[in-house]
Amino acid sequence: MREVRIGICGLGTVGSGTFNLVHKNAAEIARKTGVMLRVVHVGCRRDNPDSDLSQTTVSRDVFAVVKDPAVDIVLELMGGTDTAKELVEQALDNGKHVVTANKALIALHGMELMHRAAKNNVCLRFEAAIAGGIPIVKALTEGLAGNQILFVAGIINGTTNYILTEMEQAENRDFSDVLAEAQALGYAEADPTFDVEGIDAAHKLTILSSMAFGVPLNFTAIYTEGISAVTSADIKYAAELGYRIKHLGITRKTDKGIELRVHPTLIKKDAMLAQVNGVMNAVLVGSDAAGETMYVGAGAGAGPTASSVLTDLVSIVQESSSTSLGYQLDQIQALPILIMDDVVSAYYLRLRVQDLPGVLARVSTILSQRDISIESLIQKDVRAGEVPIVIITNEVQERDLNQAITEIEAMQQIKGKVARIRVENI
Amino acid sequence: MREVRIGICGLGTVGSGTFNLVHKNAAEIARKTGVMLRVVHVGCRRDNPDSDLSQTTVSRDVFAVVKDPAVDIVLELMGGTDTAKELVEQALDNGKHVVTANKALIALHGMELMHRAAKNNVCLRFEAAIAGGIPIVKALTEGLAGNQILFVAGIINGTTNYILTEMEQAENRDFSDVLAEAQALGYAEADPTFDVEGIDAAHKLTILSSMAFGVPLNFTAIYTEGISAVTSADIKYAAELGYRIKHLGITRKTDKGIELRVHPTLIKKDAMLAQVNGVMNAVLVGSDAAGETMYVGAGAGAGPTASSVLTDLVSIVQESSSTSLGYQLDQIQALPILIMDDVVSAYYLRLRVQDLPGVLARVSTILSQRDISIESLIQKDVRAGEVPIVIITNEVQERDLNQAITEIEAMQQIKGKVARIRVENI
Repeated sequence: MREVRIGICGLGTVGSGTFNLVHKNAAEIARKTGVMLRVVHVGCRRDNPDSDLSQTTVSRDVFAVVKDPAVDIVLELMGGTDTAKELVEQALDNGKHVVTANKALIALHGMELMHRAAKNNVCLRFEAAIAGGIPIVKALTEGLAGNQILFVAGIINGTTNYILTEMEQAENRDFSDVLAEAQALGYAEADPTFDVEGIDAAHKLTILSSMAFGVPLNFTAIYTEGISAVTSADIKYAAELGYRIKHLGITRKTDKGIELRVHPTLIKKDAMLAQVNGVMNAVLVGSDAAGETMYVGAGAGAGPTASSVLTDLVSIVQESSSTSLGYQLDQIQALPILIMDDVVSAYYLRLRVQDLPGVLARVSTILSQRDISIESLIQKDVRAGEVPIVIITNEVQERDLNQAITEIEAMQQIKGKVARIRVENI
Repeated sequence: MREVRIGICGLGTVGSGTFNLVHKNAAEIARKTGVMLRVVHVGCRRDNPDSDLSQTTVSRDVFAVVKDPAVDIVLELMGGTDTAKELVEQALDNGKHVVTANKALIALHGMELMHRAAKNNVCLRFEAAIAGGIPIVKALTEGLAGNQILFVAGIINGTTNYILTEMEQAENRDFSDVLAEAQALGYAEADPTFDVEGIDAAHKLTILSSMAFGVPLNFTAIYTEGISAVTSADIKYAAELGYRIKHLGITRKTDKGIELRVHPTLIKKDAMLAQVNGVMNAVLVGSDAAGETMYVGAGAGAGPTASSVLTDLVSIVQESSSTSLGYQLDQIQALPILIMDDVVSAYYLRLRVQDLPGVLARVSTILSQRDISIESLIQKDVRAGEVPIVIITNEVQERDLNQAITEIEAMQQIKGKVARIRVENI
């Protein structure tokens, strides 16, 4: 099997998470791509106890990684725009593909770096730079490639979305109060300026806009407004008028030019983006054929960011695009399909009973004999001598539940069949 | 520029929509891929007045298309599993790539057809077979390729989601009543069995499961339950207990095997999937690194389906994966970026005014002098001689709005700055 050798520069949260994910999923990825990924060189100022580097070359100088002839693909996971830029330039010039999670680097220097990659006939990819684990770069550049994009609007910073969500849900909590809490919980940095004033979102929107419309990256032209001026009174009045306040990045193609703006925005409470709360990110794309599609997920964290770094890795190494199911054909492996009797689920049951004393006790006994407990119960609406009883059970095997239903239906006081609908905590 | 020649088999809603979309967006797609798409042959029993076929070879026998040496890629957009299977087989054997929107064909005969494609060294792709315009095949097979997938749960049939949504929103409307309405609106077929009994969803889930876990397509093993037994009483009781009923396809990897099931399901009201209403589709994917990501959009219709057919076309023709922004580097074209003064938006304004008669009249006058009208207004909460006035305006240019604000802030009765937040109907 072909092996592709990876060098990782930076071993903080993202670097370490990516290192670990490659190790964990290399075999599954080989089933999909026919290629074995192997981290052969890590450049980091200090080790990270979360990653076992005993099988890997480690350099304290990150530039040793991009000079290493054993490295095919460099992952730039350090952040910053000075050393990172120099590092990526050298990697590209040395004929290595580069994957980066660095939104500032791409927003500020992306055009130059892409031309450099093209000149060296290698790839430069940055799925992880926008919206964490959501594969939005792929969705926009490939998934919607047949469309003309009309607009992109996104909740692309988890910190500001968390703060606005908290301000809304706990009434009368003002911005500074919630920010302090977010910092304590690790959802906001000690210096929150980058997130709270919208600079992080502006970096991401700059990249989204260029992918949407094929225009040059133009960070200096973006309009950026943070959320520090939003008060709890504004959130309350907005709610009264049927709106929710979200911190959005919006880019839209108009007859006069491209809108490119990050600011707090009132959107209707029932709009799709208004349902995205807490640290979640979401990107809504309007396009001429697909209409509106939305992509939702975690916007940050080691796992989601590593996921997107690997998306790029796989795109680069994938030899053939003919694997229709995403796995090599000889790697499609049968697994048993569970019959429904073996499936574990919670259940909603609706019984029509004659209003006789003791019926509920009997039903409870039948359920409890099979270790089925009652999570919720409704009994009311007495009419015409018939009482509906509605039960939500705990998680049980469907086999046991079906046996209990058969026994319940055999009771003289039960009318007709028991209605049964599965309950999932999805 | 390289040209890729397309043959379309079937010219119903999807075929005609795809034909038109290729024509509309061929130039933009060439900017992205460096390849010009051209439909050179259409096979259809009759013309479709929605598509102008005057520049295209037309055959009444669809098999003429797959035999045509001028055709590089065949789009099978006829539906059905008999003629369509034979057609796809011949196309693959003739060395042509095939793109299909046919979920039944792939769910029932996909393994055989994929092996045939591999043998002939061509691609077989089916993004349009699942969830209309949502690029979920690409998200699952490429976007999350670095992950081990844990589960996939989807609202993958618009008809059943529409019926359940209507039953919930208009209380006490039973299934048959809403179904009749859905048929009148064109959201349900005259014979609705395929959708309502879950067979369509089962076809799609079969494919999703194989992509998620790399298992063979296994339509015969799927458990399928429709929504015809769900009553308005069930929806009401579920709501009382904090749940919403959705018709879900669920596939999950467990220690014992693969769960593969389509049925009505209670999910918590605040769950992400519970927010997806009407004819919209959504697919929630649980994975080990990215966590939960969700993909939302229109599940059917000419435009969304054509969008996904073109996703596959672009994937097949794309020569190089080094186009980091999704456009060829020499096709990145600058467009003017609008300054905020030129942006058109509605606005939320919050004014702190002294409770003096005539202030509101003066504010209204200032606004109306610039053609800014008031869509909503709140004035209450009198306290300490200071009254907040909250206004939502119609859509205006930001330049005009800013001038009005300056004038309002200059009024003696206005305290401090006017709070201003933009309103978007997104």
